[in-house]
Amino acid sequence: MTTQPHSKIQLTHQLNFILEIDKLKGVIRRNRLVSGEREENSAEHSWHLAIMAMVLAEHANEPVDVSHVIRMVLVHDLVEIDAGDTYAYDAEANSNKEEREQAAAERIFGLLPDDQRRAFRALWDEFEARETTDARFANAIDRVLPLMQNYHSYGKSWRKHHVRADQVRERMAPVRDGSESLWQYTEELIESGIEKGYLTNRDSV
Amino acid sequence: MTTQPHSKIQLTHQLNFILEIDKLKGVIRRNRLVSGEREENSAEHSWHLAIMAMVLAEHANEPVDVSHVIRMVLVHDLVEIDAGDTYAYDAEANSNKEEREQAAAERIFGLLPDDQRRAFRALWDEFEARETTDARFANAIDRVLPLMQNYHSYGKSWRKHHVRADQVRERMAPVRDGSESLWQYTEELIESGIEKGYLTNRDSV
Repeated sequence: MTTQPHSKIQLTHQLNFILEIDKLKGVIRRNRLVSGEREENSAEHSWHLAIMAMVLAEHANEPVDVSHVIRMVLVHDLVEIDAGDTYAYDAEANSNKEEREQAAAERIFGLLPDDQRRAFRALWDEFEARETTDARFANAIDRVLPLMQNYHSYGKSWRKHHVRADQVRERMAPVRDGSESLWQYTEELIESGIEKGYLTNRDSV
Repeated sequence: MTTQPHSKIQLTHQLNFILEIDKLKGVIRRNRLVSGEREENSAEHSWHLAIMAMVLAEHANEPVDVSHVIRMVLVHDLVEIDAGDTYAYDAEANSNKEEREQAAAERIFGLLPDDQRRAFRALWDEFEARETTDARFANAIDRVLPLMQNYHSYGKSWRKHHVRADQVRERMAPVRDGSESLWQYTEELIESGIEKGYLTNRDSV
């Protein structure tokens, strides 16, 4: 097989996209690794979610298309290359999050050939809308993972940012739409986090 | 749906695995990010490969099952949690690489419930054997990506480790089994890397 001109042009565009998304490794999230050693970046977070989808799919409330969930979580944070990671507990940054991310989606997915641009965009839109069974499960694991990391790194990130238990509960509410058993698990971690002093109750503030 | 005891025990095992693999984010590779800023870790590398599989599948020599390739690359470096990353151009470390990785596979995949342990192990074995079409393509992108990163970060890692062009060519040879057009691209990058002084020719050493 020899490379045809069209195929070669297509490959050049695709390789530019591959180079561009290397930048997601420089987008730093607020939660720390389980070891507590450093904050996590969005690329390694996306990898972790993809494996989590492979391992935990049986706990979804309804049967999911695992391969589709994997693709959704692999792609879901790419817009952060331009828009940055918006901390879940930062109300101000969340107010213009959508606008920033829409512009980012246009530019970043726009680097791909048309059919792939549409496919990547559709995955991201589906994740954001949280309407399909797959998207609800993808959003559930996206919320559970940082909870696990925050808890097991002794709540360092929660304590640093003065996060309260009721804020975490509100953040975890959509987990229930994706997985009842994972949501029960978040309740246990939050209770334990309060007991250990990682999280404060509203009353104690 | 309420969580049944068996399902809850299963979930506990699975969540322990999810926590354990956070350690892959601390396994540092020799190649640097495209920005040159720091060396890459194996978790973010695996994420990048998964997206690369989604984007470049059409360039495989034979049609591949993209979802299967994605799973293979997501899992392919997990053994490094115990065995560490073995630098491709370090002959000594490569001599006992297999033994170290086999033991790591036993322990790490062994954290999963039996059916998942077998499935993850099979993905890793398939990747390592490089016999199936999917594995040949997965191995091709696993070699092309660090080449791209090394080239675009001005050969910093090659120069640091005194890597020669013939060593890189030998490392890239299997790319041809997975994708003729990606292999042609590696040839172009190697030629250009020699011209720019990122790589030395054997003769000039």
